[in-house]
Amino acid sequence: MSMGDLKKIVVIGGVAGGATAASKARRCCADAEIEIYDQDEFISYAGCGLPYFIGGHSPNWRRLLARMPDEFANRQNIRVFLRHRVNSIDAANKLVRVVDLEGVSEFSIEYDRLIIATGAVPLVPPLPGKELDGVFVLRSLKHALEMKSFIDLQAPHRVAIVGGGAIGMEMCEALRRLGMEVHLVELADHVLPPMDADLALRLGEHLEKRGVVLHLGEKVEGMEGKRDGRVARLITSRGSLEADMVLLSIGIRPASELARQAGIALGARDAIRVDESMRTSAPDVLACGDCATTFHMVAGSESWVPMGSTARKQGRVAGETASGNQASFPGVLGTFILKAFEMTAGKTGLGVSEAVEVGFPAESVTLEDSTFPAYYQAGPRMTARVTVEKGSGRILGAQVLGDFAAQVDKRLDILAACTAARLTASDLSSLDLAYAPPYSHPLDLPIVAGNLAEARVLGKECTCTVEGLED
Amino acid sequence: MSMGDLKKIVVIGGVAGGATAASKARRCCADAEIEIYDQDEFISYAGCGLPYFIGGHSPNWRRLLARMPDEFANRQNIRVFLRHRVNSIDAANKLVRVVDLEGVSEFSIEYDRLIIATGAVPLVPPLPGKELDGVFVLRSLKHALEMKSFIDLQAPHRVAIVGGGAIGMEMCEALRRLGMEVHLVELADHVLPPMDADLALRLGEHLEKRGVVLHLGEKVEGMEGKRDGRVARLITSRGSLEADMVLLSIGIRPASELARQAGIALGARDAIRVDESMRTSAPDVLACGDCATTFHMVAGSESWVPMGSTARKQGRVAGETASGNQASFPGVLGTFILKAFEMTAGKTGLGVSEAVEVGFPAESVTLEDSTFPAYYQAGPRMTARVTVEKGSGRILGAQVLGDFAAQVDKRLDILAACTAARLTASDLSSLDLAYAPPYSHPLDLPIVAGNLAEARVLGKECTCTVEGLED
Repeated sequence: MSMGDLKKIVVIGGVAGGATAASKARRCCADAEIEIYDQDEFISYAGCGLPYFIGGHSPNWRRLLARMPDEFANRQNIRVFLRHRVNSIDAANKLVRVVDLEGVSEFSIEYDRLIIATGAVPLVPPLPGKELDGVFVLRSLKHALEMKSFIDLQAPHRVAIVGGGAIGMEMCEALRRLGMEVHLVELADHVLPPMDADLALRLGEHLEKRGVVLHLGEKVEGMEGKRDGRVARLITSRGSLEADMVLLSIGIRPASELARQAGIALGARDAIRVDESMRTSAPDVLACGDCATTFHMVAGSESWVPMGSTARKQGRVAGETASGNQASFPGVLGTFILKAFEMTAGKTGLGVSEAVEVGFPAESVTLEDSTFPAYYQAGPRMTARVTVEKGSGRILGAQVLGDFAAQVDKRLDILAACTAARLTASDLSSLDLAYAPPYSHPLDLPIVAGNLAEARVLGKECTCTVEGLED
Repeated sequence: MSMGDLKKIVVIGGVAGGATAASKARRCCADAEIEIYDQDEFISYAGCGLPYFIGGHSPNWRRLLARMPDEFANRQNIRVFLRHRVNSIDAANKLVRVVDLEGVSEFSIEYDRLIIATGAVPLVPPLPGKELDGVFVLRSLKHALEMKSFIDLQAPHRVAIVGGGAIGMEMCEALRRLGMEVHLVELADHVLPPMDADLALRLGEHLEKRGVVLHLGEKVEGMEGKRDGRVARLITSRGSLEADMVLLSIGIRPASELARQAGIALGARDAIRVDESMRTSAPDVLACGDCATTFHMVAGSESWVPMGSTARKQGRVAGETASGNQASFPGVLGTFILKAFEMTAGKTGLGVSEAVEVGFPAESVTLEDSTFPAYYQAGPRMTARVTVEKGSGRILGAQVLGDFAAQVDKRLDILAACTAARLTASDLSSLDLAYAPPYSHPLDLPIVAGNLAEARVLGKECTCTVEGLED
């Protein structure tokens, strides 16, 4: 199909990947019709901001909306259909069947290019009591508004958060901020399972210091309610826990049923399989964002790593490809970060056990130190653990943990850039980072971690610290 | 010379490069005698912390001392000779002549390996009045103590700072903090000459808002004093300026005379020429730190870029090489950063004009935006300008400027890592940086700068912003 034939681009879903894809497509093809269909009432909002809205840090939810539907129409000539669910895709005839959820009419739409950006949906196992009033998931703005309304009207006293991942952590902070008693129930023996246990343990201790009650190694079996239909307790493998609100944040899965039913191939974790240009197995059908697979640049394999930032990047590429341009997305490192109270935890690339699993002879070095020269600002501290390939010294990933004020995110991003660039420990140790006392030690933590890793890889003894000169 | 013959390592200078080299050498050779000779009273101190001591942010100067001479002796078996000046090097006979500045005795020391770490000295042109009381340079801790004592005892009201480089900027803040009237005199037509004029202009405006009076495009011709020998005014190409204190911070030059007199080859800017292992032209003589050359990794040429962080890295390599080990330092990007009041400015690699000068077909993209999502934290803003090679899209450098609270340093370091790794605009645009609302936009500024640069290189139109979705 040549560009000249491109009359209509249809986008299913308009939160992050879809909104970006539509905007990018508009930029590339001034004349094509572009339409977004979304079953929800809201599109183009900051999903990652929901815990901050609920906790009252960002009390006005309207500020989470990046763009209103009429702005899409007026400024970009993109038509947005809210509360319109796409029920099926006929890839052979290039049609989608759409239901207007308000009017309950169903109609067909032709497309020249289709972009599937249906996102992900919360995992909700078939637990007894999951339909009780006061049991929530938190994925969409609608979920957040429902939860906020429940909190405002019912004033729950004690919440059980099920799942100690990023959302679980952020919601611990949000709900403690609202004065609630917070219990965190996690199946694994430490919070934040993607982190190494010893690091995650320290995050867990911080949560406890801030009043969160941890229930680790505990499996949720269901919820029990009161007569009025409101949740009263959580039943776990270890007993029961009184709770007048429950948040199930045990994970998400890609919203790929629509694609699967259309015969489009799925990949890792049943996400829609896409190539580096966001093409699916069906001609002229693209996918991007949390519903789509990606490529893990260190593991070297197809992967499913749903992230708002990745959705934007994939959305740009999907918009380009849909417009007939060449574009590609090389993949991800699985980088994540979260703030929990006054602590930051994050990771990029692979930990040692993950690296070994995919075939790297890997080891790690761990460095704990202050962020700033003591004479300038004592206090903020952090820990970095860098995964390196034995022999080559290639940086395979890093985990960082520390005080929020320690600017752990900066060190993580430096290490993410180095991991993406396939730098070695030796490269890291000689990196020319910006030094002045208000920003770091003369040799910032990633550099010293590079020294340590270099010594480890070369089998040298090394006991350097950032604070001392003994390096 | 084999390791077994290595009996004595002599280090001249013990501030950053020398102290690190001696420590590293001790780690590598447990049995060698290691001696540091320094003409000053203090070694192993944080030179970059001096403005913060003078301004009272870090009032206890003892905290600037990383290690005391007796700690070198007791913990590392390194003998430190303070107030001992090395007068000459006899490289043929592997001897140095040393003067004890207290006793005024002179004696010879044999070495097996010599490490020259004499640092740099302030540039002081032959201006009339430079010997007046109240005229200072700021390079060593001794200079800082003298200046602090003058300020405490004489309570100067009005200072003229000559030279708008990093030290000049930092001292503007320090001396305003002490309530002084501050005049900054700079020969160029903007402060911070290594930055592009339009960016530096904004830094200048910030200084003015904080009460600094700028005198740009003005050449200093001398100082005039009162009868009591104290400075009274600065004479410039545009007239005279009342000042009861003057700080000359017009630059530094490498302290390389000792090496030159010994017949050791000098290189860029008359710094001591070293190879990647810190070897000079004389056998068994090494040099490191501000007295030595380095290699500019983007320009691809020998360069002189004195920085405390580089001195540490070179010191490690000098210590290794002196010990008979293989070690090398690949070079620098010329990265710098500074805080001036509530603003941060920094640079890595080359600006467009510098890149063009060394033969790159270069252009730049500029992006100004907020740091955080508005719903999370409105306010902090920054500007990034990224230099890219036309055609290849290779990142050649970056300049950043913004609010101190905008964490400009993080973005600069990410860009420094990308520059060192020879990443392209396209690589930058797909970097998997860590995103959560307390840390950045979903697509952080370096990524959007990568998008812009990619579009520019490919000749595409692109008007993306971090805040919008229009990318």
